[in-house]
Amino acid sequence: MSNVPTSSRPADTGAGGASPAKSAAGTAAGTAAGTAPVSSVPHMKWWGWGVEGVAFTYGNKPDFAPFVKKAVGLDLSLPAESPIAFEDLVVPPSRATDDFLALCSTLIGQGHVVTDDHDRVVHTYGKSIRDLLRIRANLLPRTPDVVLYPADEREVQAIVEAVVNQDAVIIPFGGGTNISGSLEPRPEETRIVVSLDVGRLNRVLDIDEGSGLARIQAGAQGPDIEKQLAERGWTMGHFPDSFTHSTLGGWVATRSSGMQSDKYGDIADIVRGLRLVRPGGIVDLRPVPSTSTGPSVREMILGSEGRLGVITEVTVQVHRVPAVRDVIGYFFPTWEAGLAAMREIAESDASPSITRVSDARESGFSFATRKASTGVTAAGTKALMRVLTARGWDLDALCLSFIGYEGSASHVRYEKHLVGQIVRRHGGIGVGKGPGALYDQKKFDTPYIRDFLLDRGAAADVSETAAPWSRLQEVYDEAIAAANRAYADLGVHGWIMCHLSHSYHSGACLYFTFAFVTGDDPLGEYQQVKSAVQQAFVDHGATLSHHHAVGVEHAPWMEDDISAEGVAILRGLFESADPGENFNPGKVLLG
Amino acid sequence: MSNVPTSSRPADTGAGGASPAKSAAGTAAGTAAGTAPVSSVPHMKWWGWGVEGVAFTYGNKPDFAPFVKKAVGLDLSLPAESPIAFEDLVVPPSRATDDFLALCSTLIGQGHVVTDDHDRVVHTYGKSIRDLLRIRANLLPRTPDVVLYPADEREVQAIVEAVVNQDAVIIPFGGGTNISGSLEPRPEETRIVVSLDVGRLNRVLDIDEGSGLARIQAGAQGPDIEKQLAERGWTMGHFPDSFTHSTLGGWVATRSSGMQSDKYGDIADIVRGLRLVRPGGIVDLRPVPSTSTGPSVREMILGSEGRLGVITEVTVQVHRVPAVRDVIGYFFPTWEAGLAAMREIAESDASPSITRVSDARESGFSFATRKASTGVTAAGTKALMRVLTARGWDLDALCLSFIGYEGSASHVRYEKHLVGQIVRRHGGIGVGKGPGALYDQKKFDTPYIRDFLLDRGAAADVSETAAPWSRLQEVYDEAIAAANRAYADLGVHGWIMCHLSHSYHSGACLYFTFAFVTGDDPLGEYQQVKSAVQQAFVDHGATLSHHHAVGVEHAPWMEDDISAEGVAILRGLFESADPGENFNPGKVLLG
Repeated sequence: MSNVPTSSRPADTGAGGASPAKSAAGTAAGTAAGTAPVSSVPHMKWWGWGVEGVAFTYGNKPDFAPFVKKAVGLDLSLPAESPIAFEDLVVPPSRATDDFLALCSTLIGQGHVVTDDHDRVVHTYGKSIRDLLRIRANLLPRTPDVVLYPADEREVQAIVEAVVNQDAVIIPFGGGTNISGSLEPRPEETRIVVSLDVGRLNRVLDIDEGSGLARIQAGAQGPDIEKQLAERGWTMGHFPDSFTHSTLGGWVATRSSGMQSDKYGDIADIVRGLRLVRPGGIVDLRPVPSTSTGPSVREMILGSEGRLGVITEVTVQVHRVPAVRDVIGYFFPTWEAGLAAMREIAESDASPSITRVSDARESGFSFATRKASTGVTAAGTKALMRVLTARGWDLDALCLSFIGYEGSASHVRYEKHLVGQIVRRHGGIGVGKGPGALYDQKKFDTPYIRDFLLDRGAAADVSETAAPWSRLQEVYDEAIAAANRAYADLGVHGWIMCHLSHSYHSGACLYFTFAFVTGDDPLGEYQQVKSAVQQAFVDHGATLSHHHAVGVEHAPWMEDDISAEGVAILRGLFESADPGENFNPGKVLLG
Repeated sequence: MSNVPTSSRPADTGAGGASPAKSAAGTAAGTAAGTAPVSSVPHMKWWGWGVEGVAFTYGNKPDFAPFVKKAVGLDLSLPAESPIAFEDLVVPPSRATDDFLALCSTLIGQGHVVTDDHDRVVHTYGKSIRDLLRIRANLLPRTPDVVLYPADEREVQAIVEAVVNQDAVIIPFGGGTNISGSLEPRPEETRIVVSLDVGRLNRVLDIDEGSGLARIQAGAQGPDIEKQLAERGWTMGHFPDSFTHSTLGGWVATRSSGMQSDKYGDIADIVRGLRLVRPGGIVDLRPVPSTSTGPSVREMILGSEGRLGVITEVTVQVHRVPAVRDVIGYFFPTWEAGLAAMREIAESDASPSITRVSDARESGFSFATRKASTGVTAAGTKALMRVLTARGWDLDALCLSFIGYEGSASHVRYEKHLVGQIVRRHGGIGVGKGPGALYDQKKFDTPYIRDFLLDRGAAADVSETAAPWSRLQEVYDEAIAAANRAYADLGVHGWIMCHLSHSYHSGACLYFTFAFVTGDDPLGEYQQVKSAVQQAFVDHGATLSHHHAVGVEHAPWMEDDISAEGVAILRGLFESADPGENFNPGKVLLG
């Protein structure tokens, strides 16, 4: 990444400082770049994941540097490069006319109509590696022309009417964590582009304790929601990797899934009621547990990525905080054994809250990011490894698994018993709560590691999918082979690892993470690897994405995924609901 | 019902003969009316539910006649009237042109292109009380002009292309069990109307044993499916009340739900892959366990009632036949106690396959339809009732409940233990497997009782809904009050009873059955009662229908259910997918 100019942002040396999520909480974005925050709505760094002042460090993780050296050939002792400085960015001027801005000010108040460069840059992209590569390469062909922060649904309605009347474009914005290109304006867009930030709609409005339903505003972020619910003894149980910064509205608009989905369901299961603002008025879907009244409008809004209107309020299922919540670690001798065990658990009478198994490479990565002082102690680990070697295990093939249990103490005991029998039948062993606690502690850190590597010239990203159980091994083999072929073609030292998570009756999600040291054309190289993996998915019976939506990133494969006639039906839906192409055009289906 | 002429069909005396489902299996429809079957596809009676030769009888049910007398004031000792004879029906002539029929014969073979009156009448309506009242009143304003029986998907595609090219109308037809008016042609339709009967597409094509997925043709009926699956040790677990005659394609097109949905899910959960034939080609949705790729086209086809095309093939989740399947009976002292127990079970760690509780009136009905020799013995019942009375129970308020358990023997024991604790906390008691066996034995009989009563001048029908737990008591009270107000307005002796079934995390289904002796205008009287109940649903936070779809019967309340803007989105979907209104126009949304 030698073509990225250095900036005034102090390069993180990487060898010291606190772990992510341990430093001070979210300061408003923009501080590092010297611009003042213009809204009370907190945003992530414009140049990377998370809040200013929090970064990944490896000083207390002795195995990390050797692991990275081996995996992608990167020497962490070399100094990091800093990304571009904000003041060096070439930000296109706002095309919002004075009349348009005056109209917006009338509707929501001047203080909530923002055209400054920093806000417009923050609202241009999500946080995919492609987004970060582009922003660091000073590629901002089109930004929103104005960011609007409405206070409530009534103001959202007023904006929506105005945008359509003025033939402008509206892109709803939640936490900005999207990694599929769902937020960026079309480069060729000549109309005024509004980024509608719902960050001020962040409250839990009501809990129906008799039904386990909570009415929540769309702009509420994960921690806000869980905190407000926990005060009354409830949880939504939705914990995607983006949890700390993503919003309920974003989860719905992109069909998100959380790590405890085996128990709580995907967001599509959790959402019962919805309010969606459209030019003609509000789609108001009342919360009912199930209904047979025609094609599901609820399921049309789920995954609509702003193309049908602006989600303002969602009624979700909430659950009493369980008496016990345990995450137990297991080791399997091989990936195949882990996969078979997960399938048998899904078919069994057991119903754990988390089922997850990493392949040998991802297990190695987990061990390498372990702090010296936590988890299974070094001595204990060594002793265990000696036992496993004596049993004939190939330690390089060892796969780490986590299984979560929730409920009453006796129910958790019962479930552990059922699962334990299955694990043993597949040659696995339980290794206690240590790895589970480690998993809980690290689960939201991965994006920080991605940014750390990017500062050092390595691009890392994820591709995930879902397929029937009988095809998972094939999808796994083919996706890895496709990535390795792409690495060979590019002549780069690449890495790809995988875990299974989110089990269903008929299949599961496979989640791949890949990384390589970039050369002269980071974006092109990334695109080649990413495309190879996605093509392998659809060629082998798997979907484009289990929980990262479509955006523009996955749109080229939509016909492969749902067939040309399926795309035709979807296109008809979008065109009939938005004949003027005012609502986030170009997403989900290519324009 | 004195305005219905008698016919040559021998009136069932009602006091003798076999129980339903015990007589000879399905002869082709039409035998009684003297017309010959024209296709190998079996159909139900043109004038009522089920197959010829099977009818409800009460000779061995001593409590039935007194119960009916008390409930609706009907004296079963009076002779039954027979419905109209087929030869007295005024069947509109077919409008299919010779050219159109010749074209169809070219596409699928002359023997599968049927224009005879009997087939066209069978394909005109479903089996709602409104359908039966109309056919018995000789109201056939519009029938299909031709019934087509394609052999396979290729022939379906050819028909679909031809129908659109010729600007005809196509109405897909499965088992003909629909009770919401999803099958009838619009009375004012001037174009040729084709009823596309998918009855020849009736095979289980493939079982993916590694994933628990089966690929099944859309025209396969319930018993066909379960028989073909059972031969290999699998079950789909989908048992709607219509099971014996309805088809997989019909279940999907109307969002059906089966009595074991608590474990197996509604059809919307069970369906993973789909093939839908459209003029441009086939929507091919591959079976994936979950996906985030945009608004769900799968969920648009579910509940589409033929408006988007013709479903030819469905990939569904299937499960290993469980080692143990028990249905246990429970008594609750009041409806409120039963409701509270069901809610607590749904919130608990237990996961039964069936949760069902009847109100006091429906419990009384269940006891009244009990055979003298089965179920809880009379002596045992009397002893138990004495014990309950001594405990202070009001036996007139007693509510009968069934809870189903499936899995390994030890798992079923564990679940029964969890549920038993909850039942006891709400004052209920377990009464063993006897009532459960009775429930299993009678579960598909209700429509035969409906026809039996109709022969004797009483109209009976059902309305069902779903709502959040916190609103169920209100919905229950208001629906019953609405029905009783309608009865009072009409000056009839009416009856309404209810059970809760299909529990979810946030709510459940309430299923009402109502009956009254009709006067001079049976259709108008029925409409008044039905409308009162449906209006109560939508006025009190409940949906129009939990599992009986929309058709034309429920269409007037769609805006109340999903809001005007929700209807606008749905209308846009239909209009964009079917600009020529060739696919079952007028269903789901009024034209």
